[in-house]
Amino acid sequence: MCRWAAYRGQPIYLEELVSSPAHSLIEQSHCATRAKTATNADGFGIAWYGDRPEPGRFRDVLPAWSDCNLKSMARQIRSRLFLAHVRAATHGSTRRDNCHPFVCDTWSFMHNGQIDHFDRLRRSMESMLDDEHFNARVGTTDSELLFLLALQFGMRERPLAAMAEAIGFVEQLSLNLTGSAKVRFTAAFSDGHSLHAVRYATDAYAPTLFAAPMGEGGHCLVSEPLNDDTDAWMEIPAGSAVTLSEKGIEVVRFQPAVDGAAVLQPAMAG
Amino acid sequence: MCRWAAYRGQPIYLEELVSSPAHSLIEQSHCATRAKTATNADGFGIAWYGDRPEPGRFRDVLPAWSDCNLKSMARQIRSRLFLAHVRAATHGSTRRDNCHPFVCDTWSFMHNGQIDHFDRLRRSMESMLDDEHFNARVGTTDSELLFLLALQFGMRERPLAAMAEAIGFVEQLSLNLTGSAKVRFTAAFSDGHSLHAVRYATDAYAPTLFAAPMGEGGHCLVSEPLNDDTDAWMEIPAGSAVTLSEKGIEVVRFQPAVDGAAVLQPAMAG
Amino acid sequence: MCRWAAYRGQPIYLEELVSSPAHSLIEQSHCATRAKTATNADGFGIAWYGDRPEPGRFRDVLPAWSDCNLKSMARQIRSRLFLAHVRAATHGSTRRDNCHPFVCDTWSFMHNGQIDHFDRLRRSMESMLDDEHFNARVGTTDSELLFLLALQFGMRERPLAAMAEAIGFVEQLSLNLTGSAKVRFTAAFSDGHSLHAVRYATDAYAPTLFAAPMGEGGHCLVSEPLNDDTDAWMEIPAGSAVTLSEKGIEVVRFQPAVDGAAVLQPAMAG
Amino acid sequence: MCRWAAYRGQPIYLEELVSSPAHSLIEQSHCATRAKTATNADGFGIAWYGDRPEPGRFRDVLPAWSDCNLKSMARQIRSRLFLAHVRAATHGSTRRDNCHPFVCDTWSFMHNGQIDHFDRLRRSMESMLDDEHFNARVGTTDSELLFLLALQFGMRERPLAAMAEAIGFVEQLSLNLTGSAKVRFTAAFSDGHSLHAVRYATDAYAPTLFAAPMGEGGHCLVSEPLNDDTDAWMEIPAGSAVTLSEKGIEVVRFQPAVDGAAVLQPAMAG
Repeated sequence: MCRWAAYRGQPIYLEELVSSPAHSLIEQSHCATRAKTATNADGFGIAWYGDRPEPGRFRDVLPAWSDCNLKSMARQIRSRLFLAHVRAATHGSTRRDNCHPFVCDTWSFMHNGQIDHFDRLRRSMESMLDDEHFNARVGTTDSELLFLLALQFGMRERPLAAMAEAIGFVEQLSLNLTGSAKVRFTAAFSDGHSLHAVRYATDAYAPTLFAAPMGEGGHCLVSEPLNDDTDAWMEIPAGSAVTLSEKGIEVVRFQPAVDGAAVLQPAMAG
Repeated sequence: MCRWAAYRGQPIYLEELVSSPAHSLIEQSHCATRAKTATNADGFGIAWYGDRPEPGRFRDVLPAWSDCNLKSMARQIRSRLFLAHVRAATHGSTRRDNCHPFVCDTWSFMHNGQIDHFDRLRRSMESMLDDEHFNARVGTTDSELLFLLALQFGMRERPLAAMAEAIGFVEQLSLNLTGSAKVRFTAAFSDGHSLHAVRYATDAYAPTLFAAPMGEGGHCLVSEPLNDDTDAWMEIPAGSAVTLSEKGIEVVRFQPAVDGAAVLQPAMAG
Repeated sequence: MCRWAAYRGQPIYLEELVSSPAHSLIEQSHCATRAKTATNADGFGIAWYGDRPEPGRFRDVLPAWSDCNLKSMARQIRSRLFLAHVRAATHGSTRRDNCHPFVCDTWSFMHNGQIDHFDRLRRSMESMLDDEHFNARVGTTDSELLFLLALQFGMRERPLAAMAEAIGFVEQLSLNLTGSAKVRFTAAFSDGHSLHAVRYATDAYAPTLFAAPMGEGGHCLVSEPLNDDTDAWMEIPAGSAVTLSEKGIEVVRFQPAVDGAAVLQPAMAG
Repeated sequence: MCRWAAYRGQPIYLEELVSSPAHSLIEQSHCATRAKTATNADGFGIAWYGDRPEPGRFRDVLPAWSDCNLKSMARQIRSRLFLAHVRAATHGSTRRDNCHPFVCDTWSFMHNGQIDHFDRLRRSMESMLDDEHFNARVGTTDSELLFLLALQFGMRERPLAAMAEAIGFVEQLSLNLTGSAKVRFTAAFSDGHSLHAVRYATDAYAPTLFAAPMGEGGHCLVSEPLNDDTDAWMEIPAGSAVTLSEKGIEVVRFQPAVDGAAVLQPAMAG
């Protein structure tokens, strides 16, 4: 299990999520309160959008709390849309290539959760990738593979539907190969314009997801609140997808798509 | 606060302290139970004696739990006397040069604890060093500086007395410069023949220290027990020094030496 | 292109190859003389056999010349059979998992050279692996993949024949997929008993390989000589395999096996 | 010896110095042509000024050519004034704290060159520092110490004069302590407004320094030209200081100040 935070709105310094709040992401790297593991010290990463279509990215393997580069960059870089992540490894060794966010052309992705039985599913999942996305794989995590599958399933055109198909595919595959399936998945992803997040689990234990307004008309999405201001944080229910865009915040139901039939229905609007 | 374990006896694989026990040092790097901080993830190190007079040493900045080099080496290297440490940084950034054990010629040293007001004492402590020991300093920790002071005060000839003088000097200096003094110090050190450990604090909260027999006629010294076999572990009282040598285990009283008058009296014998 | 050195014989300190000679492996990490690239600074690794059937291993991403762990370990560890490697990356990013030697159960392997068009061959090569060897893959190099293919083709029972089949398979695959084939391959591999090396290239430019006696009845194999004593170093001709075992040094012809028909004929005996 | 490049002008992407030019700084990290050593692989660093008075900074120990973070950041970050450096270690181990640029409040500094006999001068140089600058020291290089000395000598108010005094002090100290003195010093430093560079050596071998116009009204200063356009690059003569400011480029004579009498005379104007 990992911790993450993402923002979309008027440009703010990354530190406003990463290091300044009372319960900032760096704070969560050693004492997360709503995660299965309090320590998220197997590396970290940020992806931020500026003037180019593709994001900048910085990842490293030290615990976030002890990396002086991270602190300096978070204090210096301002962005209108960024993702930040601290990792507690489940699948894949501690190395930069396994740190979130993952980036593929203009898209970025980060994840908290895991796929049960991943060791038995990995090869079949990889074999689903076309050559373009197969060659884009550099690490060994389940998270990167979910991202690449979603890209292949059409994320660039219909991000939530493709993600629903990717998770549905993995659940189906797991049922076929292992007789059971469990995916826990709270993730954020973006093309540099909209920022999406999904909270879902096959069972009743979807990792938490919260949203709050931030800055002038902006919002942040986080795996746990950045401070004690309980009024500010809206918990996103399990089985939901959130989209931050020019239209504000929109929350819809999310469930895995079986046989290509993604089911995405309007649920709530913010 | 940090965690450490040391051994003297017939050669054993390092893993018998580092990774194999139920509550091994690697386990303690993420869930120590008797430390101020459960997480000791700011690097690690080992120093082991083989056929040469000086020890081999391996240190790195990743959390011990995620370093594959450490696991492989602990499984392959056998030693008759070794020190192993996982760090939770108090003074000094996360980098190899600040990881314990520190080594100077044939001597090795590692420490759990800290010197209060170290930022205000550091310069005066460094200025006490003669050129030889000043040039041997490579990091920025209080621990390394205590080690170098003790070496300069005669550790090579009378290890416990010199350590008592070093601590006494620091307490006196702190009183003079800051009006108060607090040193917490549970440390192990060796010349490759005997293995010494000290448990001491200026106040009533000396970091814990335990001893247990291990292997054929050997002993280990640890900051917290490596398993639940409570009968096996003898807690060393605060204000004590332990020496493991050919003569077995010996515990004596330890208190800082003021004005060069080290006070070391026999207390208990194991 | 990389540089490597290997040894089999009476136990010697690793430093006798790694750091002590005038043109030691560490020296070659910044000024190799017979390599395509003088600088081999994309990490390093050692694998050494001791009392256990599997080797110990230590790899890291810094240039070998600046790693203090490597120097200390090479000075402290003695081994009867070891492999040491400094890397100049061709395929695969700079990370520990891509550093040689690669290890699988009791086998170790390191390589200098490369497979042309590897980006177009990688997926097919990986798909040849059975699940056991597929799951053993952790990096992204062509070298690791050649090692795993050879293991799958029977390296544990007939090391040189399996390696000949692995190279033959890759050449054939490259011809089929890209219309041409070029493999350059000077590698060493061992099960902890015998030490094998191969010098081969599809074209006329096989990376160099030299052998020399070392210690009492031992030998070393290197990609370039460790000193200027030209009488001591025997150049192994291209298209050869060398085996160091209890029987001494043996050199045979080596050529890739096509259709499973490995061709290995006696050539010279040392 | 190291390589560096610095820029002042309209905001440009860092990559225009770091990675895009034919002979970019990353290219120079493995094949510098005018340095004593072609390989500058002992880490790298950048310091860039944005909206805050203090610069952002990113440093790491890998060779610049293999660090994916550096490439991504150089492509994403735009700055009106920045310093970039690749290191070939002379004094001080390979670790982040020893990588240039050094930063102290709003000031940044990077250096190519060295102080002869530094091991014998270090302690006296450090003892010159007042507590503020002593506590600001985190590494072990001669370069950082020169920077801190200059800050203490008044760099914040009169940058070139203070630097002249710092070098003069070191030369005098070296004469007193070792009987001879040799400082080679080509450095750049900035407060975020003006960018200064100095080319100087006690002997006739001052490391090279070049200037060229870049972007709209901007300039860059480099230890060697970034491309083959020989007309564009003006070599700055030894014994000179360059200042880039709102007034354009200004070159004056530079020589060490003895007894506090800094000698800075106008030489040429660009």
